[in-house]
Amino acid sequence: VSTWINGRRRTTIDARDRGLLYGDGVFETMRVRGRRVRLLDFHLERLLEGCRRLAIHAPRAALLRREIAACAARRPEAVLKLIVTRGPGERGYRPTGAEPATRILTLQPLASAARPLPPVRVRMCKTPIGSNPSLAGLKTLNRLESVLARSEWRDARVWEGLMGDLDGHLVCGTMSNLFLRRGSTLMTPLLDRCGVAGVMRRWVLAQAPNLRLRSWQGRFAWDTIAEAEEVFMTNAVAGIVSVALIERGQSRVKLAQTETADRLRARLEQL
Amino acid sequence: VSTWINGRRRTTIDARDRGLLYGDGVFETMRVRGRRVRLLDFHLERLLEGCRRLAIHAPRAALLRREIAACAARRPEAVLKLIVTRGPGERGYRPTGAEPATRILTLQPLASAARPLPPVRVRMCKTPIGSNPSLAGLKTLNRLESVLARSEWRDARVWEGLMGDLDGHLVCGTMSNLFLRRGSTLMTPLLDRCGVAGVMRRWVLAQAPNLRLRSWQGRFAWDTIAEAEEVFMTNAVAGIVSVALIERGQSRVKLAQTETADRLRARLEQL
Repeated sequence: VSTWINGRRRTTIDARDRGLLYGDGVFETMRVRGRRVRLLDFHLERLLEGCRRLAIHAPRAALLRREIAACAARRPEAVLKLIVTRGPGERGYRPTGAEPATRILTLQPLASAARPLPPVRVRMCKTPIGSNPSLAGLKTLNRLESVLARSEWRDARVWEGLMGDLDGHLVCGTMSNLFLRRGSTLMTPLLDRCGVAGVMRRWVLAQAPNLRLRSWQGRFAWDTIAEAEEVFMTNAVAGIVSVALIERGQSRVKLAQTETADRLRARLEQL
Repeated sequence: VSTWINGRRRTTIDARDRGLLYGDGVFETMRVRGRRVRLLDFHLERLLEGCRRLAIHAPRAALLRREIAACAARRPEAVLKLIVTRGPGERGYRPTGAEPATRILTLQPLASAARPLPPVRVRMCKTPIGSNPSLAGLKTLNRLESVLARSEWRDARVWEGLMGDLDGHLVCGTMSNLFLRRGSTLMTPLLDRCGVAGVMRRWVLAQAPNLRLRSWQGRFAWDTIAEAEEVFMTNAVAGIVSVALIERGQSRVKLAQTETADRLRARLEQL
């Protein structure tokens, strides 16, 4: 694992950084393939959108591109994580507006969780996702809900956990987004109240017309899974991951089809 | 500002600390008076309860007491902040369970916001608080909602902002708890779904019988404020702060009484 902080090789950050004090920042977890970052434009767009909505002074895109390219070039396959925090601050929640953002780049080897052998097993988590339209869709450093949900199981055969909101709607996985297909309709939860709008989710939604699928973002409950013909999950590092089994307490839903995920994966490989 | 990390004078922390990566930790902001921390037992109890609920390996209470006492002794009046994170971790949300917690102690001068001149002005914020019973009541490092709410105003005459949940119930201030009194009933929002259960809130609730007040925790909407005879807000640093004016868009509620807050403050001074 190698780390660069504000462009320099460092391993520590200022203990007054608001990223630590309040989770006041955003991040991207990117897949390096062939020494380049996959879906880089989408990652940068979401990062900068997050900075805009949180009123963080975002680093210039050209600077980020340069640093990311130099970092990615060091390994053929890797995970590249970029954190941007509001930077060190005074005491108190209110930003002065003058904080210089901190950027932290970390290059790490691909972990096994990043290379699942689909179709995978998934479980429904008890930890709910709280709704807050102000933060919905963003990948902020406030990730305790994901930490608690991911702490619910240790069985390495279960790849991911599904999370729902307090009204019982499915929202996303702890580290991925959810897609259901029935016929030629591709459904994914609407993320206007909570959840992280993944870059791979965005890419899949953009591909849908090419696969003659009608995509639909909405609210749906657990029961909808039983009506799905195919379920897959997406994240920027692992890509498109078919789901064979979903567990929720004692009930289990088995899924046999992987056709859409297979076609999407083939397209993704061509990028 | 002086900082000690795991008992040593330091100013930086490991960039892999989960406190930074995920806001995976809790904190206490304590008032030093006469070189001692006020309500120390309540602070430690909440901190350890937070560690328990997040399954963080909490530092031993005796160690925390020793370090806090040594730190507080350096200044007659100050703010002492203690952060406990899960510590440095591997990539991924799931804790291994073996992370050694990081403790960060910071001693800083009393800021002006910590010494308001009551009765103060307060405003209703637009940023809502998301509900999540798993985290409700805890003072975690996931504080982006407070940051966004506190960013809504810059007018230094407004001391605090009130926040409500998505159903329109009042919950708390960005950095304080809310109390309303009507007759001999003292009301404060129930914090079973969201909000931080402040140590000063706990102290006030414990004092209520001594002041012949019946305390009640429940859900109430904005309209309840219009029916209140007295409103005050509490936090561990500023104490008990009477509210004279609450603004919400164009509407304003004026409050004349400060009797209960005055009596509580007198008792607090005697501690």
